[in-house]
Amino acid sequence: MAGVRFISFEGVDGSGKTTQLRALAARLRASGTEVVETREPGGSEGAELIRRLLVEGDPARWSPETEILLFTAARRDHLERTIRPALARGATVLTDRFADSTRVYQGVGRADLQGADLRETVDALHDLAIGVEPDLTLILDIDPSVGLARGLARGGAEDRFERLGTDFQLRLRAGFLALAAEFPERCRVIDASGTAEEVAARVAAEVVG
Amino acid sequence: MAGVRFISFEGVDGSGKTTQLRALAARLRASGTEVVETREPGGSEGAELIRRLLVEGDPARWSPETEILLFTAARRDHLERTIRPALARGATVLTDRFADSTRVYQGVGRADLQGADLRETVDALHDLAIGVEPDLTLILDIDPSVGLARGLARGGAEDRFERLGTDFQLRLRAGFLALAAEFPERCRVIDASGTAEEVAARVAAEVVG
Repeated sequence: MAGVRFISFEGVDGSGKTTQLRALAARLRASGTEVVETREPGGSEGAELIRRLLVEGDPARWSPETEILLFTAARRDHLERTIRPALARGATVLTDRFADSTRVYQGVGRADLQGADLRETVDALHDLAIGVEPDLTLILDIDPSVGLARGLARGGAEDRFERLGTDFQLRLRAGFLALAAEFPERCRVIDASGTAEEVAARVAAEVVG
Repeated sequence: MAGVRFISFEGVDGSGKTTQLRALAARLRASGTEVVETREPGGSEGAELIRRLLVEGDPARWSPETEILLFTAARRDHLERTIRPALARGATVLTDRFADSTRVYQGVGRADLQGADLRETVDALHDLAIGVEPDLTLILDIDPSVGLARGLARGGAEDRFERLGTDFQLRLRAGFLALAAEFPERCRVIDASGTAEEVAARVAAEVVG
């Protein structure tokens, strides 16, 4: 796809985003493209400091509203310090999550827990402080029971969302698919079942045609 | 003043906010009032973590926009975890800075440095995420050269604004006075020159009449 230089990978935990991002980066580099691989929350020096506040410690440390403000602050720093400079010099940027993750995790995924839909707050903050979307968003779609098993096997301290279980992951999956329907111009749903090589071929078909 | 239970102290660095807040707290307690003394940025466990990101390290670490998002995130946590619970149980809350400091420091004080007035962004974020003002705001007004000398004498690692010098403090003072004119219902300008006891008497006259 010509002109597509800012690409986000989205999906539930364990959907294979990180693996697929690396595979696409390698493929693009092999064809001579400069690629910046990055991630959220984080992706810049300041945003990684904010990430630590978000992913470490008690998951109930922040209210949903405070959490959305922190995610947006981290995204603003990531955009200013990593994404925009890379795009300005002609590089292609591949990011493991961007604003869609906040829309789904905070706006949809926590709605039942909090009794309120926070999507409006997420969108208002995005319009105010971020204002850009990726050229292409690849939503890696997988049965949550498969994704959850992959995620738990990986372990680590950043499993706060994984620990919330399969019901939560089901809501997230539905949220990502609804988002793909809401933004059909930039979103592509990728079947993330099968081997990494099989999924990589599906990703490459969307990006390089 | 009846019904006044949420009071903020504002002003340039070295204007005596902290000293005067303590003096008023002691006076109110002596008359049997439960008083919560707090401060911004910070004032709750989570907000104090965000404060560290804001006041430590290189002052140019964050863009003005990211900084405003972080101040607002800290304020939201402070409001939810400290201010609202205290007011709900009938306590009086005295805070060393609140939203007016963000309006003046980020919205006015940095405008010349950044070539853009950020006040609109500050206000939009405040409306979205905070939405409340103190019942009474005491603006301690002092000649910046006096305030700056007091602040530098105090020292410490949190002197990022002080280091910006007298011109910056002059803009801040003008910003606080403009704010008092903008919100005359809740703002009172207190002459902060003279001894701590003299200023305390002026503060008490506004609060307890």
